[in-house]
Amino acid sequence: MVASPPSPDPVNARAHDPVFELHAGGKMEIASTVPLSSREDLSMAYTPGVARVCEAIAAEPSLADDYTWISNTVAVVTDGTAVLGLGDIGPTAAMPVMEGKAVLFKQFGGVNAVPICLDTTDTDEIVETVARLAPSFGGINLEDISAPRCFEIEQRLQDRLGIPVFHDDQHGTAVVVLAALGNSLRVTGRSLDAARVVISGAGAAGVAVSRILLAAGARDLVVVDRQGVLSSAREGLTPVKLSLAQDTADATGRHGGLVDAMEGADVFIGVSGGSVPEKVVASMAPDAVIFGLANPQPEVHPDLARRYARVVATGRSDYPNQINNVLAFPGIFRGAFDVRATRITEGMKLAAATALAALVADDLNEDCVIPSPFDARVGPAVAAAVADAARKDGVARR
Amino acid sequence: MVASPPSPDPVNARAHDPVFELHAGGKMEIASTVPLSSREDLSMAYTPGVARVCEAIAAEPSLADDYTWISNTVAVVTDGTAVLGLGDIGPTAAMPVMEGKAVLFKQFGGVNAVPICLDTTDTDEIVETVARLAPSFGGINLEDISAPRCFEIEQRLQDRLGIPVFHDDQHGTAVVVLAALGNSLRVTGRSLDAARVVISGAGAAGVAVSRILLAAGARDLVVVDRQGVLSSAREGLTPVKLSLAQDTADATGRHGGLVDAMEGADVFIGVSGGSVPEKVVASMAPDAVIFGLANPQPEVHPDLARRYARVVATGRSDYPNQINNVLAFPGIFRGAFDVRATRITEGMKLAAATALAALVADDLNEDCVIPSPFDARVGPAVAAAVADAARKDGVARR
Repeated sequence: MVASPPSPDPVNARAHDPVFELHAGGKMEIASTVPLSSREDLSMAYTPGVARVCEAIAAEPSLADDYTWISNTVAVVTDGTAVLGLGDIGPTAAMPVMEGKAVLFKQFGGVNAVPICLDTTDTDEIVETVARLAPSFGGINLEDISAPRCFEIEQRLQDRLGIPVFHDDQHGTAVVVLAALGNSLRVTGRSLDAARVVISGAGAAGVAVSRILLAAGARDLVVVDRQGVLSSAREGLTPVKLSLAQDTADATGRHGGLVDAMEGADVFIGVSGGSVPEKVVASMAPDAVIFGLANPQPEVHPDLARRYARVVATGRSDYPNQINNVLAFPGIFRGAFDVRATRITEGMKLAAATALAALVADDLNEDCVIPSPFDARVGPAVAAAVADAARKDGVARR
Repeated sequence: MVASPPSPDPVNARAHDPVFELHAGGKMEIASTVPLSSREDLSMAYTPGVARVCEAIAAEPSLADDYTWISNTVAVVTDGTAVLGLGDIGPTAAMPVMEGKAVLFKQFGGVNAVPICLDTTDTDEIVETVARLAPSFGGINLEDISAPRCFEIEQRLQDRLGIPVFHDDQHGTAVVVLAALGNSLRVTGRSLDAARVVISGAGAAGVAVSRILLAAGARDLVVVDRQGVLSSAREGLTPVKLSLAQDTADATGRHGGLVDAMEGADVFIGVSGGSVPEKVVASMAPDAVIFGLANPQPEVHPDLARRYARVVATGRSDYPNQINNVLAFPGIFRGAFDVRATRITEGMKLAAATALAALVADDLNEDCVIPSPFDARVGPAVAAAVADAARKDGVARR
């Protein structure tokens, strides 16, 4: 008898994959910050001592900021509908991303983060659920919730809660893009208010990037989705897209498709996951700036982009100029928490981008428009700028 | 000019209170269990590597047990309505207790626990909210939710979710009481089926203690609330109390008030927070067993109780025989998680009590009917017994 060859064993295949090995048992844990090894320890951290702390907070609720972990803890909330480039994979399969986010919050911002993966995709139910668990947290980081629900969910929660609500896929991306774009325009001798900017993608990131660039002074900006340039002449636009159309192409009269928009454009920012043909890339202005942020396949491959553009950025770590949200969200929440901000204002986001851009300083060149995530100055600099802006905007509670 | 004396400063008073010092900043934090110090680390724990783990779980959801923290993480959920002896102090003021619970879960059971304090006291809303966040957790520990809502909430959640749902104020207390009572009866030469038992209090703990004693073989048991002995002759009983009446006093025909019930009783278990007059205590049988579990003031002060009883237990750490839930809940969830149990059965609770009682072994005497929380054998012994019972009861998934 001849033994048959062993059949492929997916479990063993995973056991030898370093990524699965790393994920065994998950990536995070709860740790105590107090001693628990004697009866006296227990009588302080738990009954009967803890009752005094509860009574003090019941009498003066703001004391919870000082005597619980709430004010340094964010809920990372998803419904699993727009996870990375994977789409709607559901709440359980989203957990590895949420754990990853949580450990980055701690590592780069000293913020505790708790993953909450919800078994509902209904807007009203998500809002109600998050509002009900909000007393447990100092802030809410929405994550990987698909557009357009993400806009309404964020807005309604922020209107209702007195703590920061932040959809990172929108604003984290927007802050880092603005920082990198400001430096890219400096490298190419342009100013934002004179640059012709094309944004491909009108989902969470596309809308937020457009909004922050408009707030920062962009005046000739078009947003392109699968049907072409967003303009109010188009029918069937969602309220969010219609409003964006009115503030972008309507103001300049531009219309048509991606090909029309790209001809002569100074800046292309891809947040769509699509692909731009080489001849369209070639039609951009000289010394163009190209950000292809889809991951792992950018809208314009960086090798191709470099043939036509002066500055190229992607979401990838294996090319220069990585646009990585981890440059923003830990410092933004750190700064907001440091002053007990009640919300994240536009001013706080702009301040974060400015601080991030400034860190590049004398190193500024085509291949260095944004700091590395491992630059230890990033978190503190963003946090300090955000805290200052919170005070200026009147949303700091201390 | 003479300076006026400094006014009492409550902030400074707290600053010099060791309990408040201990609570500064809260008692817990999130920690990463993976390295995050290089681009390669990030590309494994976060994008792009993490996408492979998400895809695997999306294809085979049970892999979440192996590659996320879910299967070792419990939500500690409260609405803040019955916190310690403090009552309805709300979700924010409840947080110090929930953090305490969470760190005990880790210290004594190796279980991650996340405090969730809910901004609703509505039964339907609590059930909906917990069900929606359940994908994030391997179990639900309900805590300090007032009766009778706690019974319905637990039942509905357990019916709906495929993970353990455990109201610790009920079952944690019941398990430890059963363990201590079994040993107390041994010390006094009695058997549970022949003992006359009086339980004062028909809230969460009273109901659960009654139920576990009935399940363990008690036959002459009465439950007394403020209106007297629970019997179906009484009007206006809640469904939970009516059912309990039918299974207790109705079976023996006992009726009347606490004074009637106590005369000649072998065992008194106080979980009411009331106070029992000395002459009523004196009317119990010789070699009585008295558990006064209200905290910090037991229903019968231990010094008084010892004058009339052979075995006395309280919830206090400064007297012998401390009935402390920490002896049960960490090991129960450890055992349930070890075998991926889908629920906590009656068999698992009884097994936990038996294992706990057995640890006393040769040390058994009036002042040692239950192990110390710091006995390192407790968590593992309870966990092993619970895991075995889960397999026997067919609720283990591995």
